[in-house]
Amino acid sequence: MTKTNAGRFFEDYSVGDVITHAVPRTISGGERAMYHALYPARGALYSSDAFAQRCGLPASPVDDLITFHTVFGKTVPDVSLNAVANLGYAEGRWLAAVYPGDTLTARSEVIGVKQNSNGKSGVVWVRTTGRNQHGVDVLSYVRWVMVRKPGDGPAPETVIPELARAVAASDLIVPDGLSFADYDATLAGEPHRLGDYKLGEVIDHVDGVTIEEAEHMLATRLWQNTAKVHFDATHRPDGKRLIYGGHVISMARALSFNGLANAQMIVALNGGAHANPCFAGDTIRAWSEVLDIAETPAPGVGAIRLRLVATKGALTALRDDDGKYAPDVLLDLDYWALMPV
Amino acid sequence: MTKTNAGRFFEDYSVGDVITHAVPRTISGGERAMYHALYPARGALYSSDAFAQRCGLPASPVDDLITFHTVFGKTVPDVSLNAVANLGYAEGRWLAAVYPGDTLTARSEVIGVKQNSNGKSGVVWVRTTGRNQHGVDVLSYVRWVMVRKPGDGPAPETVIPELARAVAASDLIVPDGLSFADYDATLAGEPHRLGDYKLGEVIDHVDGVTIEEAEHMLATRLWQNTAKVHFDATHRPDGKRLIYGGHVISMARALSFNGLANAQMIVALNGGAHANPCFAGDTIRAWSEVLDIAETPAPGVGAIRLRLVATKGALTALRDDDGKYAPDVLLDLDYWALMPV
Amino acid sequence: MTKTNAGRFFEDYSVGDVITHAVPRTISGGERAMYHALYPARGALYSSDAFAQRCGLPASPVDDLITFHTVFGKTVPDVSLNAVANLGYAEGRWLAAVYPGDTLTARSEVIGVKQNSNGKSGVVWVRTTGRNQHGVDVLSYVRWVMVRKPGDGPAPETVIPELARAVAASDLIVPDGLSFADYDATLAGEPHRLGDYKLGEVIDHVDGVTIEEAEHMLATRLWQNTAKVHFDATHRPDGKRLIYGGHVISMARALSFNGLANAQMIVALNGGAHANPCFAGDTIRAWSEVLDIAETPAPGVGAIRLRLVATKGALTALRDDDGKYAPDVLLDLDYWALMPV
Repeated sequence: MTKTNAGRFFEDYSVGDVITHAVPRTISGGERAMYHALYPARGALYSSDAFAQRCGLPASPVDDLITFHTVFGKTVPDVSLNAVANLGYAEGRWLAAVYPGDTLTARSEVIGVKQNSNGKSGVVWVRTTGRNQHGVDVLSYVRWVMVRKPGDGPAPETVIPELARAVAASDLIVPDGLSFADYDATLAGEPHRLGDYKLGEVIDHVDGVTIEEAEHMLATRLWQNTAKVHFDATHRPDGKRLIYGGHVISMARALSFNGLANAQMIVALNGGAHANPCFAGDTIRAWSEVLDIAETPAPGVGAIRLRLVATKGALTALRDDDGKYAPDVLLDLDYWALMPV
Repeated sequence: MTKTNAGRFFEDYSVGDVITHAVPRTISGGERAMYHALYPARGALYSSDAFAQRCGLPASPVDDLITFHTVFGKTVPDVSLNAVANLGYAEGRWLAAVYPGDTLTARSEVIGVKQNSNGKSGVVWVRTTGRNQHGVDVLSYVRWVMVRKPGDGPAPETVIPELARAVAASDLIVPDGLSFADYDATLAGEPHRLGDYKLGEVIDHVDGVTIEEAEHMLATRLWQNTAKVHFDATHRPDGKRLIYGGHVISMARALSFNGLANAQMIVALNGGAHANPCFAGDTIRAWSEVLDIAETPAPGVGAIRLRLVATKGALTALRDDDGKYAPDVLLDLDYWALMPV
Repeated sequence: MTKTNAGRFFEDYSVGDVITHAVPRTISGGERAMYHALYPARGALYSSDAFAQRCGLPASPVDDLITFHTVFGKTVPDVSLNAVANLGYAEGRWLAAVYPGDTLTARSEVIGVKQNSNGKSGVVWVRTTGRNQHGVDVLSYVRWVMVRKPGDGPAPETVIPELARAVAASDLIVPDGLSFADYDATLAGEPHRLGDYKLGEVIDHVDGVTIEEAEHMLATRLWQNTAKVHFDATHRPDGKRLIYGGHVISMARALSFNGLANAQMIVALNGGAHANPCFAGDTIRAWSEVLDIAETPAPGVGAIRLRLVATKGALTALRDDDGKYAPDVLLDLDYWALMPV
């Protein structure tokens, strides 16, 4: 009975520890096809080799969130198997595009710990890095989770990392060779370029998707995410399976194509909160708010910072009078994407 | 709120307009695997490189209906987002085989418009063409839909295109190099060759498949078809999601393997009607009727014209006493396929 | 109505008959991606080209059970369409690794027949072999099924094949080039090597997965398995769809990663029983018992013989007081896997 992985608890993390996560993963066109069946993803750069080549890339990379989910999935057995809550993300940066045939590995460094006052749990901060088979880092992000502390050992020294509120535009990495100088907006699906968006502009993405159990489980397994709450209907007293927060992220991002078709590549994750749990039967909708606009050195390539909100009802206020997320809000994500100027 | 695509309405179509559809799409073995998981597709030519090579092709092409769905999906945001009904197909021809790695684009020409007498809607005819990355057309077909007309502008001049009742056998395109001279019927799955089928013969394909929400949504998204009725359970008062008609086409075609295993490649779509809506929980069955038989210039390759009927119950009469489709009939499709002589 | 395959009945099998099964199948990265979405499969050798190359293989092969399901699926229309029960497996051996791009065919030899005393059915034994496009056998196994006998012809001479109770360790085939001399247990996911397992040791794999209709149908179709009981909810009076036994095998094997992450490649199937039917809504759990341990000639490569039991409840006794399988037991499988020493 002792051979299975019980996961780490709060006392198993020390600042400075580096965890090499298991099961390197080769991505093929198969994972992309599955992703496109699971989400209404329509980004032209992630759908067509020809379109990507016209944008200066060697071929169509896999969707940016495939990279994220693959790396994230590897961390689950080591970071969040005993997590009570997934508290936040920061300083996420996509560092290199991932192509079919690439193999990804992941490692995490513990950069912060803080025991809760109840002594029964604590917060752990890790910086996770995904790397390809050439030793090139493809993604880096900070995540913090609340983890149970079953033992009664002394509290570790509190270390709370200083995290940027957002990745600076000057720190965004544009993939090698990317150019939007010869961008075909007709093939991309919408005419709106960076200059057409205004700070504070809110876009209702209109469409809704009702979620099924089979779909979120297929998605979550695809990333080798093993957290049992997503799969085992006997785990909760109410018989519900909690949907992987990343499923909501990908669904909302894909829905945002309608109004943001030219927000082509996610290059930074500034922050994010899974505001309320999502279950099968919920109908996910999304809206976006333009938070910032910036230039990049690449030809014709600008950057747009967006707040992406997923709800399980109609477009509503993000927060109620107490400042808490409204009950219908599932996700509040803050990211940078590249867009033609 | 104005950045999202509201779709075109009747007054937005003029005869002669050419619409370039967005989001070119590269097809890989991943899309094929997904297709084979969604439908009981067993055509040997579409399953095996070795079998396809013995038939003179460089490799196994993707299933003919993958080409159809991919091209059709691209047209949805421009043609059928506000469609009240998908009225018919005609003059469909597969012009070149599509292989993993190919990238497809689509464009449509408006070839007919006719406002309805109520002034609130009209019929639009488009001829859609799919093209690969080499500039070679791979598929062409006419579709007509009824579209809403919210405004009260004057009616356009009525133009009703002349459409062939069926593609003539002499107009069928046989893929380059295809030969059934060395055809292995054992590996294909059935001994029946073209000469074994008689005009008017009816084949009950025996098997049934009960449809799930997750499956039809995976399928519809895979083709980047964005019509919200397929995904959003809050869209209709009864909470049902209307199943994409193409899902029924592919299911029925795959079921028809049992009795038509050698009807290898669809090369023409003569016509088709989605007779009644299909919903999750329906059990789809299919039967075929032999409508015509013809020769082609390729070695050992004949053509069979088939009526393919999908029902959600047992084999029944196609039409009731009034000439309307019986309530259990989902699909009435008329196509040509290539078969060894 | 006579063109469809009605399947073979007991009188259609004679000892010595060789059946070439239809529809050769090319496997791509797409089938692997689909497999990894359907099951929580995490074997590093089957996930990463880089990991497989470090183990001496040219690339990551497809999961061993993909080979099994693909070959098995081909046999269904000829062997088990009219089967009343799938009675057992024996002498299964994986003979060569299968890589994306390979095309598999299958043939079966009838090696035994025994009419039941009621005269209405009989048992048929077949030895099935899967072969790749180079003419190399990749898998061989014996299966026996009970098949209906609608006619009243005389009983054939009873032939019961002698079958090994287990494949001898000396008969296991290690894939060409495989070496665990430079095995990275961190990347594989667990530290336990062959020497860490004891005969009789029982491992509870802890996790559970609740099964959905859409998932088992996707899986079963992916292998072109056409048995109608899996797809047609109108087939049984209770409206339930019987889940393909292979779906339970793959689910249990994938769950066994947790505690057996280094049991990398299945190389032999000694026996197996589908103890009770599985239906959507069941939550599958698994436990393993170590039955034997052996050496192989390959560097650092040992073999572990395991009993893998899938249940639809908690870990229970395998059999009740009468020696029958307990009602919650779904699967009792006996196999050999390769593991680093």
